[in-house]
Parts: sequence; structure tokens; C-alpha cells
Amino acid sequence: MDLDQVNATIRAAAPSLFQHLSALGRRAVFPRGIPFQAAEAASAEINGTIGQITDGRGGTRPLPVVAEGLSSLDPDLQRHSLLYSPMAGLPELRELWRARQRREAPQDAPSSLPIVTVGLTHGLSIIADLFISPETVVVLPAPFWGNYKQIFGLRRGAAVVGFPAYDGDRFRAEGYAEALDELPRGAAMVVLNFPSNPGGYSPSEAERAQIVEGLVAAAQKRRVLVLVDDAYHGLVYDAEIPRRSIFWDLLGKSEQLVPVKVCGTTKELVFFSGRVGFLTFACAPDSALAQALESKVKALIRSTVGSPVGPSQALALRALRHPELDAQTEAVRAELEARFLCLQQAYRQLNFRTLRLLPCNSGCFALFELQDDPEIWRRRLLAEQSVGMISVPPRYLRLAFSSVAEDNLVELLTRLKRMEDG
Amino acid sequence: MDLDQVNATIRAAAPSLFQHLSALGRRAVFPRGIPFQAAEAASAEINGTIGQITDGRGGTRPLPVVAEGLSSLDPDLQRHSLLYSPMAGLPELRELWRARQRREAPQDAPSSLPIVTVGLTHGLSIIADLFISPETVVVLPAPFWGNYKQIFGLRRGAAVVGFPAYDGDRFRAEGYAEALDELPRGAAMVVLNFPSNPGGYSPSEAERAQIVEGLVAAAQKRRVLVLVDDAYHGLVYDAEIPRRSIFWDLLGKSEQLVPVKVCGTTKELVFFSGRVGFLTFACAPDSALAQALESKVKALIRSTVGSPVGPSQALALRALRHPELDAQTEAVRAELEARFLCLQQAYRQLNFRTLRLLPCNSGCFALFELQDDPEIWRRRLLAEQSVGMISVPPRYLRLAFSSVAEDNLVELLTRLKRMEDG
Repeated sequence: MDLDQVNATIRAAAPSLFQHLSALGRRAVFPRGIPFQAAEAASAEINGTIGQITDGRGGTRPLPVVAEGLSSLDPDLQRHSLLYSPMAGLPELRELWRARQRREAPQDAPSSLPIVTVGLTHGLSIIADLFISPETVVVLPAPFWGNYKQIFGLRRGAAVVGFPAYDGDRFRAEGYAEALDELPRGAAMVVLNFPSNPGGYSPSEAERAQIVEGLVAAAQKRRVLVLVDDAYHGLVYDAEIPRRSIFWDLLGKSEQLVPVKVCGTTKELVFFSGRVGFLTFACAPDSALAQALESKVKALIRSTVGSPVGPSQALALRALRHPELDAQTEAVRAELEARFLCLQQAYRQLNFRTLRLLPCNSGCFALFELQDDPEIWRRRLLAEQSVGMISVPPRYLRLAFSSVAEDNLVELLTRLKRMEDG
Repeated sequence: MDLDQVNATIRAAAPSLFQHLSALGRRAVFPRGIPFQAAEAASAEINGTIGQITDGRGGTRPLPVVAEGLSSLDPDLQRHSLLYSPMAGLPELRELWRARQRREAPQDAPSSLPIVTVGLTHGLSIIADLFISPETVVVLPAPFWGNYKQIFGLRRGAAVVGFPAYDGDRFRAEGYAEALDELPRGAAMVVLNFPSNPGGYSPSEAERAQIVEGLVAAAQKRRVLVLVDDAYHGLVYDAEIPRRSIFWDLLGKSEQLVPVKVCGTTKELVFFSGRVGFLTFACAPDSALAQALESKVKALIRSTVGSPVGPSQALALRALRHPELDAQTEAVRAELEARFLCLQQAYRQLNFRTLRLLPCNSGCFALFELQDDPEIWRRRLLAEQSVGMISVPPRYLRLAFSSVAEDNLVELLTRLKRMEDG
């Protein structure tokens, strides 16, 4: 498809999504250049298309000092670790990740074949390139992950508007719709990030329903793009709280409500430096719309990073092929649940006077609300107590309990209490 | 350093470079957010800063189904493959790459500690973000790599102006200065890509001197940023042709001439899907200018891909630590030289009438000039001869001899000749 065809396809199949496209999003199309022509020549007897150094017949010709480091991988995964990846990622990895995503989806819910990105942030960045213009307002609960401001604001010029996430000990599920109601006319992007960073919060079924209803109502007044950031998917420590992605709850609710989903192996496969993310749209994998959107995303992948990462995709694929994967991810979740429970118990036992642990049931983090400047707390904790935490303006401290063992969590809270007392 | 300090530092140390910064480049600064605060807490007794899942004491806690694929790596490289990379890359990898770069540099030539990017294209994309505004003109010899247009034009809105690279059988070293002379007033970016893609050309010492002199003269009339794209560094097959990066020839020539260097492991370590690139500036590694530029680059890395890739850096580091590396890269170069010589000989023997092999002495590619539409040739070659080549408008075919064995190169040229005859 050329650019006109790609844009016409999107306009016809998803007019509201088309309206959200930024100027860059409208210009983007995967060109008929080298990767396109190389894909066409994949089965030629003699293939002189791609500038790879091979054995001369399509096989790898690595340096032994590199390849020896890959020798514990199956031969096909070694190959994937050395030669260029397809622009949208390894087909088998995409299929297996889609099947994994859809285990919790309603059977007829449309979802595209996920496109592989260089970590989840790259997926967010591509969504920002596609859909954010300087006049876009991005709405999300505050406090929020600081990098959203870099991705949406620094790079794309959007206004990032946070509404208060908490009312005392309550998560404000009504906040999304209220914040949208207060905006002037125009398109908006909403970020749904559950389990949340930095809060470690996931909504109950009732709160989810409230969030979705609020967004559907808001979409009657304006176009709303909903970016579902599933970075911490599955890490839930309360049996009453749903684990499924809220992406599935948004499908088919309103033509003016456009959901997109980003997720990744970073936390789900405990593979932090791997940088394998996935970008998923709400359309059938073989649809013309999926192909048109994939053309635009591939153009942005090509022009930001060349192509996705081979060794990391190979390792993720190894994990997804393995029958032990679910048992192993559940073991990690259970360990984090133990840390989470340890943290909650230690907090209750220490009777803090001013430092309030905000509601938390999931993810990697817990958030403490202070009564004064968190940066002063952070620096004193580091200098006087040798404790590292993150200060989040205007009055929060974030604790990554995912990286602190149970005995150290008790000790950390004891030192926090010492600070509060001293 | 905060944004004002970063900008003031650059303005004071490198006023011409500062003038090249785009609006995004001027806004960018590495925020005092999570990675910044986590780095400060690196030696705390209890570190709850980064949202990684660890063993609770700073060690890895991977899924066995992922970690088993890394078991042939040393323990420290396994760790680098799993936990988040520092934002600018692994320090040891940066030091070793810098030492490797500088083996061919004049002793007192300033060069920064290279910053790790997600492949060479990510380095180009960051340079484009930093230095390209919609009014920037990018000058380079045509035909050129199509992705330059995506990176500089599609994403950043620059005008990409190609001048004719060849005059019959001669590379037009004078073309850079001539093209700059013809531009209206304003800043310009010039791309120097040797060995070239798609031409496979590297200039002689005399041609290099001519290129550098031309750029120095042009820099008396306007600010010129010179982007040195060393993707194919070292792959030279003519003993008379210098292999060293032209980056070193540009240093200290003119305050208005600002060189930056991008290079990577993609071709230099035959590691195509690894996506490890490097970005190098012309300043001392411990200078305030280097720190200020690094702050901006780290902000752009953080907001495009989160952080650099761990497993790929680990594999590159393994290679750079290994005493056999030079012998192994030389073996690859020698194999490509054999393919290059085979191609040249077969071309001479076949007596093509219209299809002209352009001057070529290096790299992965050779370029054929046609007398008609290369896309028609490409499609017929694929359909009738089962030969894959890349069509490059307006009248070129690119052959990646790096991926075709010697016997198949002879066969490929025979089929090309058959097409010419038929």
C-alpha cells in the first residue's frame, strides 16, 4: 500500500482513529525501500538485497567471539540473534504473544497481531508519534510515571494533565471522566496504567466499570484515544482484583473511543534490559486496517531504531515456547506478593504518624504520602539511613518493593519510622 | 545539571554546536527522575529505587526459561543481559569501544566517551532530534540510503538534497562543497558515509583532503554540522584507500564545522540484529561539554526506547574483551574482499553493454547504473531469473555482495547479462 491507500484504508475502517493521527502519523508509510524489496526477494535463488554479511547463502557468518555467547540457544534462536529481524518482529513471537494476551479476552474481541517494539517505552513513543499533536491533551492520574512527560510533552509537545489519583485512602476512579469534562473542546488521550506506576494500584471490577462508563460518556462529547499501558500486567496480589488488561473492557464501546495497548516482556517475563515491547490495535490481524496501521508503525520503527532487537526476541521466544513459563511467572508473582504482604504488615505495626501508605494491591511499587517535601526526605534517607527511594513531587515517596527482600523491607520501614521520629 | 546549566555549558564551550540545536534539542535535559535518583542510590544499603524485580539484594531474579538461554555467558554478562542498562550504556563497553575507535586517531584528537544507542539508526535519529529543524537542509551524495529520508525528512521535516555522486567512473569529491555553495543562507547538515551505502565507495587520501577542504571553506560562509556515518567502517578492499574514519580529519578545522560520529557493532562486529550503536562528539570525555551533551542524549534515549539493550551490549562486550577479536574481524573483511574481487572480475569478463558497475572499493555493496527504470529490472530479475537486488531510483541497482557467495556472484552476474541480452 502506498501512503494514499494506507490513509484511505484507515479513514474508511476507523474514521475516529484517523482523526487522531498527528501530522507525522499521516505522513508515515513503510516505504518500498530496502526492507520492502528484501522481503519480496526472500525466496529468490540468489538474494543480494540486504546488506548483511552472511555465509553467502542466507546462513549466518558471525564472529565466533559473539556467537559463542549464544551457544546455549537452539540453532534457530541463534540465527534470530544474529541476522536482522523482520521490521514488525519475529512472526512466531508475535503469534505466541497474541495467544498469551488473548487467554483473558472475550472470544470475539478483535486484536491485531502485536508489533514488536524496543521495549514498552518505544511502543509509547510510537503511539505518541502517531497520535499526539501539540494541541493534544493527555489526561492521567497524578502522581504518574515521569517519563510520560518526556514521551508526550518533551518530544511531541502535548499538554500532560494530571488529576488527583487519591482521595484520602480511596482511588478516584471517577477522576478520568471528571478531568475530561473540564477540558476545552478537542481530542484527548487518556492513559490507563494498571497495575499503576508509581501507585501499585489496580481497580476493582466496580471501579473498572466506572472508569469505562466515564470514558464512554466522555467519548460522546469528544474523540478519546485510550492508551492502555499494561507494563505490570498480571502482578496482582488481591484475589478480588481482576488481573486482565482493561483493554478488553474498552472494545466495541463507542466509535469515538479508540483503544490501543502497549505491553512487554520487561516485567511480564522479568527481562528488564531485553527491550521487547508489543503494540496492539483493536482490529482483526488480517484486516486491511491492521495492515495499514502496521505500515505506519513499521515506518516509525525503521526511522527510530532500524529494526527490533534479535537476541532479546530470541530469548523471549525461548520463554514463550517453554511449557514451564506459566509456573515460573506465577512463582515470581508469588514472591512479590510475599514482599507486598510483608510491607503492608510492617507498615501497620510501626504506627507511622504522618507518613501514609496509599492504597496498593499490585505491581512493583508502593507510594507513601508525606506532609512535606519528598526530596528532603529522599536525600536524608540516603545520607543518614543509607536507604534509596524515589521522590515524586509534590509530596510522595515511591518504594520499589519488587527489588527489596522481606527482611530488608522491614528494616527499610524501620528506618523510615526513625526518620519520622527524628 | 538542570536545563539552563546544560544549555549554558554548551553555548559557552561550543557556540556553533549550540546554534545547531533544534527546538527539541534545546528543551532536552536528562530529568532528575527515576534513573537519576536510582544512580544516586546505587550504593545504598537498602535500595528501593528502580522498579526491577530482583532477588531483593541487587542480584538478578530471572525466569529460568529466559536465563538458561544466557548460560554460555560469564556471570557478569548474564547480569548485564537481564537488569536495566545504565542510560548511556555499559561503562566498560563504552571505554573499550572508545579505545578501539582511537587506535586510528591522532593522539590529541578530542573524542567523547561514546554513548550507546539501539543500533546505528537510533544514533542517527537522536542526532536528527538534536540538530534538525524543519529549515535544516541535509546535503549528501545521491544515490543515498533511503532511510536517511525517513530519519531526517519524515520525522524531522528537513529538506534532503542529493548531489550527483558520480561523473562517469569518477566519485565527485568536489560535490559536497558545490552543493553547499548552491544553498540559500542558513545552517546545513552534511552526511559523510564511507564506505558508502549504496555505492561501496571510500575516497582516496587526495579525495578526502578535497572533501575536508571543501567543507572547511563552506563553513566560512555558514554553520555546517557534519554527520559522519561510519556504519561500514574498516571494510576496505584496496590497500591504497585509507580505512580510518573521516571524523578524525575534521577535528579542529573550523569553529563553524561541527563533526559528530555514529558507528556501531552491526557491521563492525557482524551483529546485525544486536542493535548496539555509538554516538561520539568531538570533545574530551570528562569535559563539561560532554556531560551536557550526554544529558540531552540520555533524555532522548529515555523517551524513545527507555534504555539501551542489555543482551546485545553483553555480547558486544564479550567480543571486545576477547583477544581474538581483531583476527576474526580481519577474517570477515578478507572474505568480503574475495567476494568483491570475484564480482569485479566477473563483471569485466562478461562485457556488459549498457549496465555499468560504478567505482567501488569497500563496504557491502556495489552499484550498477542502468539506462532505464531499475524497478522494471528488479521485478524481471526476481520473476525471470530468481535474483534479488534492490532498485534505487532513478537508474541504479544495488547488489549486496556481502550476502552472496563467490560462485553465486558469478551466477548472479551471468543472469544479469542474460537480462541485458534478452
